[in-house]
Amino acid sequence: MIDFMIGITLGDPAGIGPEIVVKALASQKDLGRFVVYGERAALEDALSLCKLKMGICSPEEKREGCIRLHDTATLERGGYRMGCESAECGRASFLAIEAAVEDALSGALSSVCTAPINKRSLHLAKVPYIGHTEIFAQLTGASDPLTMFAVDRLRIFFLSRHVSLSQAIALVTYDRLIDYIPRCIRELEKLGVEGTLAVAGLNPHCGDGGLFGSEDRVVGEAVASCCSRGLDVVGPVGADSVFAQCLKGRYAAVLSLYHDQGHIAAKTYDFERTVSLTLGMPVLRISVDHGTAFDIAGRGVADSRGMEEVLRLALDVEARRKGSSR
Amino acid sequence: MIDFMIGITLGDPAGIGPEIVVKALASQKDLGRFVVYGERAALEDALSLCKLKMGICSPEEKREGCIRLHDTATLERGGYRMGCESAECGRASFLAIEAAVEDALSGALSSVCTAPINKRSLHLAKVPYIGHTEIFAQLTGASDPLTMFAVDRLRIFFLSRHVSLSQAIALVTYDRLIDYIPRCIRELEKLGVEGTLAVAGLNPHCGDGGLFGSEDRVVGEAVASCCSRGLDVVGPVGADSVFAQCLKGRYAAVLSLYHDQGHIAAKTYDFERTVSLTLGMPVLRISVDHGTAFDIAGRGVADSRGMEEVLRLALDVEARRKGSSR
Repeated sequence: MIDFMIGITLGDPAGIGPEIVVKALASQKDLGRFVVYGERAALEDALSLCKLKMGICSPEEKREGCIRLHDTATLERGGYRMGCESAECGRASFLAIEAAVEDALSGALSSVCTAPINKRSLHLAKVPYIGHTEIFAQLTGASDPLTMFAVDRLRIFFLSRHVSLSQAIALVTYDRLIDYIPRCIRELEKLGVEGTLAVAGLNPHCGDGGLFGSEDRVVGEAVASCCSRGLDVVGPVGADSVFAQCLKGRYAAVLSLYHDQGHIAAKTYDFERTVSLTLGMPVLRISVDHGTAFDIAGRGVADSRGMEEVLRLALDVEARRKGSSR
Repeated sequence: MIDFMIGITLGDPAGIGPEIVVKALASQKDLGRFVVYGERAALEDALSLCKLKMGICSPEEKREGCIRLHDTATLERGGYRMGCESAECGRASFLAIEAAVEDALSGALSSVCTAPINKRSLHLAKVPYIGHTEIFAQLTGASDPLTMFAVDRLRIFFLSRHVSLSQAIALVTYDRLIDYIPRCIRELEKLGVEGTLAVAGLNPHCGDGGLFGSEDRVVGEAVASCCSRGLDVVGPVGADSVFAQCLKGRYAAVLSLYHDQGHIAAKTYDFERTVSLTLGMPVLRISVDHGTAFDIAGRGVADSRGMEEVLRLALDVEARRKGSSR
């Protein structure tokens, strides 16, 4: 069996990425499971900022208490300013992702965990992508990645994301649902997660038998069609209870029908610990769900619970996959 | 100063209402703060079911360890069947509410806490209302009661409730908002709650400056108009963070723009402990947010955490009001 490693990109050197990565690594039992991709200068600065004594070694070495680093080596210590946009930091952010994706595609990494990058710094560096998802999709040749949120037992897919709520309602169609439902189930299987997918309802109490809104009837028809093809899916389930029931283990995951339906559930339940997975690509990406936080970068006060969750989930996915491949 | 009492209606005798009421009362330090309204038979059955030794006395007595009961006295022990709809139980449910509202209107009660009733039993009893809110509105002469959810520091109002999501979007208008915002703030003041009201956004990230959806601009205009009249309100605040921020104490309450926006937040955060307040009436009603659960009635397994929260909140409101009247 190949012993996979987990890749971690440092994110924008001027943001809180390096800080939350070293804080999260400091809480790990076995640093040998991870390889960090990014600037040695940023990693060293973050270690001093957090007064952490971990050493740094090459990706090929395995020295106890040392962080294995694939150094993108474009910056020097003092060669960038915390909390500031710059082409240098944008370029460094991109190089780290590029190197990690390359290693993941070659089979050396089981997943890539990403710290936040800055859109404007990417732009200054003339990197022609607006964010992680676009970069990963391009580098891996994936045409339509799928986002999943995870926190505790709650896993949430999204039928649509950055469109108006009116448009999101218009996207609740039979065709879109019978495309998304099997894709969500396939991705859960790839993650080694067993159980039922629940599709949330759109209207209050799923429209209460047609009293308010008819879209939930369409959801029911799409779910029935998928069931008849042997898929483990139920719905529509009232949105005011489906997430709570998923947390209690009744469902493996929920397909939410619009951006805020899933976002409100996860982030009200636990804002700091909600993490985001990008699925449907040859490479699994796991990410914190916050930005570079330039306003607090370099102060040592960044909350690393999100990144700790990211690493916990990466280890969990690895364990599930090993379990299912036995 | 008048020493108010807290009224508690037992709900439908055949449901889990009496059971959760006695369980919740068993956790109270001072039973003398409460008067129960309902059937002595149902109360006695619930006490035996839960193997609780509390006695029962009249509302005028105050005997330690005894539940003060305003007996509606229409049923005998064994005169109704647990888990079954019936005209008798529907009538008893209504009589308890009627008596409690009468005492509340006379000033003897500071609030009325209600256990669940059954719509079909009410109908069998020819009670011409579909639920608590309608009964309370009619008995108190309130024209447009306001629902508020509460759990921990989260308080949530609703701009609309049982309409389709499409209709809810159409109801996000300037006029409706400048009507609701002052009403919510007035009700918070009456509860003795201080702080800012946040209005949730409608579209993802409040439409991201008009990129997806224009309704949040209208929300912003209505909030600005209310601010200029001296009201403590902000918004729109992104729906994926506003509830989490309210939980952390940044806002006193959130005005959600549609049923599920607020329901998902409260119920995913804590399904069992979410309680519902009916405001904007001469009588404050506080209620569990679940039904009679006929399927488990009479088995002693009902979860009383919701009712415990209801009583905790009733005591809290009383304390705040006393504090602010000093």
